Amino acid sequence: MTMTSADAVRSREPLPLTAVTIDDRFWAPRRELIRTRTLRHQESQMRRPGQQFDALTLTWRPGDPDEPHIFWESDVAKWIEAAGHCLATTDDPELDQAVDEAIELLAGAQQDDGYLNVYFTVVKPGQRFTDLRDAHELYCAGHLIEAGVAHFEATGKTRLLDIVRRYADLIDTVFSTDGPCAGGYDGHQEIELALVKLYRVTGERRYLDLSRRLIEWRGQQPYYFELELQRRGTPGYFGTRLPRRAEELRRFREYNQSHQPVADQSEVVGHSVRAMYMYSAMTDLADEYGDERLLQAVQRLWTDLTTKKLYVTGGMGSDPSIEGFGPAYDLPDAHGYAETCASIGLVQWAQRLSNLTGQGHYVDTLERALYNGVLSGASADGTRYFYGNPLASGGAVARQEWFQCACCPPNLARLISELGRYIYAQGPGEAVVNLYVAGTGRFTLAGGEVTLRQDTRYPQDGRLAVTVTPADGEAEFTVSIRIPGWSRRPAVTVNGEPVHRPALRDGYLTLHRRWRAGDLIEIDLDMEVRRTWAHPAVASAAGKVALERGPIVFCLEGVDHDCPVHTLTLGRDTRIHAVPDERTGVVTLHADATTDADADGLLYSDQPPGRSSAALTAVPYFSWANRGPSDMTVWIRDGGDG
Amino acid sequence: MTMTSADAVRSREPLPLTAVTIDDRFWAPRRELIRTRTLRHQESQMRRPGQQFDALTLTWRPGDPDEPHIFWESDVAKWIEAAGHCLATTDDPELDQAVDEAIELLAGAQQDDGYLNVYFTVVKPGQRFTDLRDAHELYCAGHLIEAGVAHFEATGKTRLLDIVRRYADLIDTVFSTDGPCAGGYDGHQEIELALVKLYRVTGERRYLDLSRRLIEWRGQQPYYFELELQRRGTPGYFGTRLPRRAEELRRFREYNQSHQPVADQSEVVGHSVRAMYMYSAMTDLADEYGDERLLQAVQRLWTDLTTKKLYVTGGMGSDPSIEGFGPAYDLPDAHGYAETCASIGLVQWAQRLSNLTGQGHYVDTLERALYNGVLSGASADGTRYFYGNPLASGGAVARQEWFQCACCPPNLARLISELGRYIYAQGPGEAVVNLYVAGTGRFTLAGGEVTLRQDTRYPQDGRLAVTVTPADGEAEFTVSIRIPGWSRRPAVTVNGEPVHRPALRDGYLTLHRRWRAGDLIEIDLDMEVRRTWAHPAVASAAGKVALERGPIVFCLEGVDHDCPVHTLTLGRDTRIHAVPDERTGVVTLHADATTDADADGLLYSDQPPGRSSAALTAVPYFSWANRGPSDMTVWIRDGGDG
Repeated sequence: MTMTSADAVRSREPLPLTAVTIDDRFWAPRRELIRTRTLRHQESQMRRPGQQFDALTLTWRPGDPDEPHIFWESDVAKWIEAAGHCLATTDDPELDQAVDEAIELLAGAQQDDGYLNVYFTVVKPGQRFTDLRDAHELYCAGHLIEAGVAHFEATGKTRLLDIVRRYADLIDTVFSTDGPCAGGYDGHQEIELALVKLYRVTGERRYLDLSRRLIEWRGQQPYYFELELQRRGTPGYFGTRLPRRAEELRRFREYNQSHQPVADQSEVVGHSVRAMYMYSAMTDLADEYGDERLLQAVQRLWTDLTTKKLYVTGGMGSDPSIEGFGPAYDLPDAHGYAETCASIGLVQWAQRLSNLTGQGHYVDTLERALYNGVLSGASADGTRYFYGNPLASGGAVARQEWFQCACCPPNLARLISELGRYIYAQGPGEAVVNLYVAGTGRFTLAGGEVTLRQDTRYPQDGRLAVTVTPADGEAEFTVSIRIPGWSRRPAVTVNGEPVHRPALRDGYLTLHRRWRAGDLIEIDLDMEVRRTWAHPAVASAAGKVALERGPIVFCLEGVDHDCPVHTLTLGRDTRIHAVPDERTGVVTLHADATTDADADGLLYSDQPPGRSSAALTAVPYFSWANRGPSDMTVWIRDGGDG
Repeated sequence: MTMTSADAVRSREPLPLTAVTIDDRFWAPRRELIRTRTLRHQESQMRRPGQQFDALTLTWRPGDPDEPHIFWESDVAKWIEAAGHCLATTDDPELDQAVDEAIELLAGAQQDDGYLNVYFTVVKPGQRFTDLRDAHELYCAGHLIEAGVAHFEATGKTRLLDIVRRYADLIDTVFSTDGPCAGGYDGHQEIELALVKLYRVTGERRYLDLSRRLIEWRGQQPYYFELELQRRGTPGYFGTRLPRRAEELRRFREYNQSHQPVADQSEVVGHSVRAMYMYSAMTDLADEYGDERLLQAVQRLWTDLTTKKLYVTGGMGSDPSIEGFGPAYDLPDAHGYAETCASIGLVQWAQRLSNLTGQGHYVDTLERALYNGVLSGASADGTRYFYGNPLASGGAVARQEWFQCACCPPNLARLISELGRYIYAQGPGEAVVNLYVAGTGRFTLAGGEVTLRQDTRYPQDGRLAVTVTPADGEAEFTVSIRIPGWSRRPAVTVNGEPVHRPALRDGYLTLHRRWRAGDLIEIDLDMEVRRTWAHPAVASAAGKVALERGPIVFCLEGVDHDCPVHTLTLGRDTRIHAVPDERTGVVTLHADATTDADADGLLYSDQPPGRSSAALTAVPYFSWANRGPSDMTVWIRDGGDG
């Protein structure tokens, strides 16, 4: 057995959903919940009278109630995409039929020239593509395209794919270099990454070129959105006018990352979801065109995000007023934002970067977002949602059943139902394990088929067994298994034989050999509870510590304590016990702590609060707010060395 | 000399502005700044084309730019009121003329029937008094009435008083028990306290009765604002519709304190300025009508505010989304609100309560608000303003030149220019000193005139000398001097002789004797720096301490430090040095502290930050943000006992 690794790790590709099974105790029930409850719940929300499904009938007339909303196609599209992901691996005739019905509604709403947007068909006819900054027209188109691609890949049906191709063809014409919208692009990025998917599934290069045009035009001067405002002469959908003051004008441009050409950008600014979708598209285009400048840009932006603007939960976008980024280190806990969709976007971007560069640390961040900032977005029963995911709460925060702008719920559904695409990747002669999820991945390597089977209770514990089964009995290739950065000294055996000093390359354990059916790789990751401190510039975490174990970030929840959770102080040397729930595998932490005791009942006193002992219980952040109203904090007062 | 106190301390009255002089180093320059810069600056803002002054010409027509704003009369009125306060004690022909000009504009805008509101005259004619909840119609009327009263009291001119009486007469008819708006009241309380002033200056009891009706109708069922919405059939000015969900309906009602009859209210809720103005009017009415139920209500509300919902700066209203109160102990620092106008309202309310009950502790809170949460509202040069007054900032907060809703700037101007009314009060046979401000107060006691002269450098130090001068050479009466609750053992002498165990009654040193011209009372208050801790339920102050000295609350400002101010930790036994600026008298605090040192540059690390020593400088909270952008915190990390 040799332990070198392949040189060419670039441009790995995710395994398709149809090549992956998931049968673990953590994710499999969550995926099933999406299919059996969440998607049904969301469908019923959108089927309410006057809502998304009704709007697609194009029967709304001025003066009627329930004016169709500019976002609504994207809700339907994300729901179809999520349903498609489910249908890729699970037979569900009822869901299949509901999706087909929605697709027929979309077909009916499509105009003769391929245009497909309810708002600009019945509410503002004749005003297509005149408010690109605010009206989310191409954003909705992008989600429709993603839905068309996902539905085709899942079911082989081309009905929706054909619809979105006709629409994409129209957009390609309108946004051609000599089209009426030459130089333009959408205020909310999304179509750029969708067009790359459409290119990959159809092979039509003009979709890729259109994506590149939209990305390259963005941020060029004169600024398109300012020309557009002048040309139109009326405020944008959200009442947008051109700001007069320089500072406001800067924010106006940064809000949707159109303040400078994207390849020149270095700082993550503006609306966080838009940023994540744009960086994802830039990474795709860097890959497709071998564009080093774009790659360098997204790597600079990644560094800025992860060293200055990312919550420990993998949330981001701390400023509610723009649903976006504040200054460096500005990460308020109770009053931040951390939109679920932004963490979802981070997962998508991190996957693209890891597959393009072969670097495992991107997946560390992906995992941080996935198990924390994304998963917190939905309730345990799958039918209530967080839009923002604060790191502390006084008790008034609760998940909602739905939102007027309901972007997060179906976005979460499509990510969880697409989880299979994030677990494995395939490179030249290389089978890659990125996430630890019990189940199988079926690879095609050097012409032969290879199955990897993972057995693990992760994240309950850190033991992982990977059984390698080349279909032909044996074959030579590399198995690369990501080793998280937090795991110091993983113990590795192959067929029971310890591997001393296992080779780690770019965050992966890389095992190259001639594999025989039944070869068994076993890894034992360090799952000690970790204390994590933030950079001193983070005000909300000053004097505080967070608890992590494996990929899970913990929090304190009021329902487990007799005192406000912000009064609890954890000593630095205090032993922390991790206790799994044997039914669900979810781990809870327990430790001795102290709490502030009320000195004299006064609001302000010249006497410091006394201290008394208290039992501290920490639960996974993703699980909070499932047991009624409760205060909560991720950052725990740090008792210091003393 | 006997040291008993008068029994009847109730219903003290403030000395009028014309009976007070101020010649100290702290307030006198600030009052002068209001007259010479702030009022000029505000006048120029309101004289801009299309703004307040132009609107009063009633020449705006639909389709014109600069639609008159519903608040604009109140801006003009508060400015006139502030100018009036200045003219009461200072000859300023230019200001006098500017005010007369504004009054003529108001006269020209008044309709034949006395109605005076630009918005409902030119923008929404025919819709008077149909959107009481949102449109601020009586709120503007209230400020006009206050301006009319102040201008008359200052100058003896009746021009504006006559205008507002005609308007008040119209309102009295419309809001009579059989008028078209019977049962109604304004969404923003203000007119209720204004009508009491109008009654007091005119002697017309129906103004007082109208005030009482508006207060008594408030919160009765069926709820007026809900009837109004139904009757009108269109959303309110701010797009208001009747919420469907019970929780939102509760907030809808609480927002303007109309959720239950005011005499039954016990918890301060909703918009904070509205609350303060209402509680002020309730206190006035409790006084005028001897209404014990109203008095008990405002005392309950006071207790709720000061034990659960008041910032240490005297700011209040922690929830920016409603410019109002959150739950008990919900007092976020960087992300709170604490509107300048609310602290101004608290000053007004506290004065009424202290004068009605004779309790000095109300003035302790008044002083807390005045020297901190109010004074921070304006820049050192008097031309830039805070609307919200956060207790911490990452550095992005700065005062603004003006606001679209510019309620705070002229409100601050009128309070500071009216300061003379807050220093002294007069009861039966009693001269009261509430605030320590060098200058004089001229009382009328038992038929004779008495002058008290204060000499003090307060708040630079705690020494106060009060010279008593009966005009007739000698007279018997009580001098009551408030002793702040934070001053433990004031040293008191009369004519140089120590007063052992001075009698403190209800927070006042009460000295009853036959006073002779030149009698000298000297008091030396404890001005040690005080460490103040918040109730453990206050999350933003957990593990932190505030510094106070006299009435001043301090803060740390980034411009004085090489590290983020939230990294500084102050030991509990560390000596704190108070250093006055000999020119301005403003005191700065200095102490040794420690700071977090960046361990490894990572955003998140498994290594705690190191500690290094640092020099801590604390400046008065009111003075922050005058030296460029800077981070700031009032709550300082408390090194604890160790």
